[in-house]
Amino acid sequence: MVITVSREFGSGGRELARRLADELGYSYFDNELIQKTAQERGLDESFVHHVAERGTTSFYSTTIASRLSSGTMHGALVAGTLSRVLEEAACEGDCVIVGRAADAILSHLRPLRIFVYADKQSKVERCLSRRKEDEAISAKEIEKRMKAIDKGREDFHALFSDRKWGDKACYDLCVNTSAKRIGALVPALAAYAKAWGGGA
Amino acid sequence: MVITVSREFGSGGRELARRLADELGYSYFDNELIQKTAQERGLDESFVHHVAERGTTSFYSTTIASRLSSGTMHGALVAGTLSRVLEEAACEGDCVIVGRAADAILSHLRPLRIFVYADKQSKVERCLSRRKEDEAISAKEIEKRMKAIDKGREDFHALFSDRKWGDKACYDLCVNTSAKRIGALVPALAAYAKAWGGGA
Repeated sequence: MVITVSREFGSGGRELARRLADELGYSYFDNELIQKTAQERGLDESFVHHVAERGTTSFYSTTIASRLSSGTMHGALVAGTLSRVLEEAACEGDCVIVGRAADAILSHLRPLRIFVYADKQSKVERCLSRRKEDEAISAKEIEKRMKAIDKGREDFHALFSDRKWGDKACYDLCVNTSAKRIGALVPALAAYAKAWGGGA
Repeated sequence: MVITVSREFGSGGRELARRLADELGYSYFDNELIQKTAQERGLDESFVHHVAERGTTSFYSTTIASRLSSGTMHGALVAGTLSRVLEEAACEGDCVIVGRAADAILSHLRPLRIFVYADKQSKVERCLSRRKEDEAISAKEIEKRMKAIDKGREDFHALFSDRKWGDKACYDLCVNTSAKRIGALVPALAAYAKAWGGGA
């Protein structure tokens, strides 16, 4: 069984995905997918990360872009490799995959597609609580970052699907984490995944 | 605890709500709310039903409309009474309320707001399987009816909320029932409701 977890920045989706994998005893794939894609293409991890979070056609630091004959073409290659890496990960066995448009890329495997979201206030508070102690960032700056990152995820998702990232029609379960402790919700979500996967 | 279940026509949302109430041992409110509102206002049940499913300003059969000095005003009165009836039901104890914009009307009580949806094919199939044996209706006619009823629910919801009916931001959990047996999903949803209500 494959579970994909897409998430708004600050919604706690990554925590939810990791805990869900633990609860179910499934493998958990997150940055490993980026690392493997980078290795296969001999690329900078940060570049692959950028493509997977921003779509292929968006701005990238000119220092790195100048090393590439065509940023866009290269981005498409990265997206293709990432697709294959995702597929290999999914074929290894039961797993939870976070982000990387896995819901769309792996749709032929009929994964349980979860989308995690929350209201703005909750997301800002979650970001503020997890920032490093020496990091001086205002709520306003967090909001701006949230917006940019979610826009990037939307753009990357658009490479693989006609449906908009975050449109509930793309997912099997949409979980609003506003003002909730993720940990307390996970056992019931694991039970839901089992019922769903059991041909419910 | 109050659970509101909003649903697309044909998604199995009513069945989900009823089973969820059974599983949790909660009261279940559906047409009773319409009956009580009609009684309090001395109105036809079918008129109240119409208002609660279509919004107040939409077309109503001229036979009945001619009995009213102002269909729209009357509709607003009905909506107001329905709100009070909903509130009374919610204050009686733990319950599941299906439809009637309860998610918006009772938002101050912080209900668990569930939205149930499915892809078109699943909804049409569900409608076809539950039609009466002697009812001759085509898939195309069902699609048309589905669209009209959902538009009515959207209109009624708009009387009480700035957020659009079906927008996941209005809900705490959105459940896609496409090709799924509702009954098999309900125990995990009940567990989720308990975790959520327990201050998760």
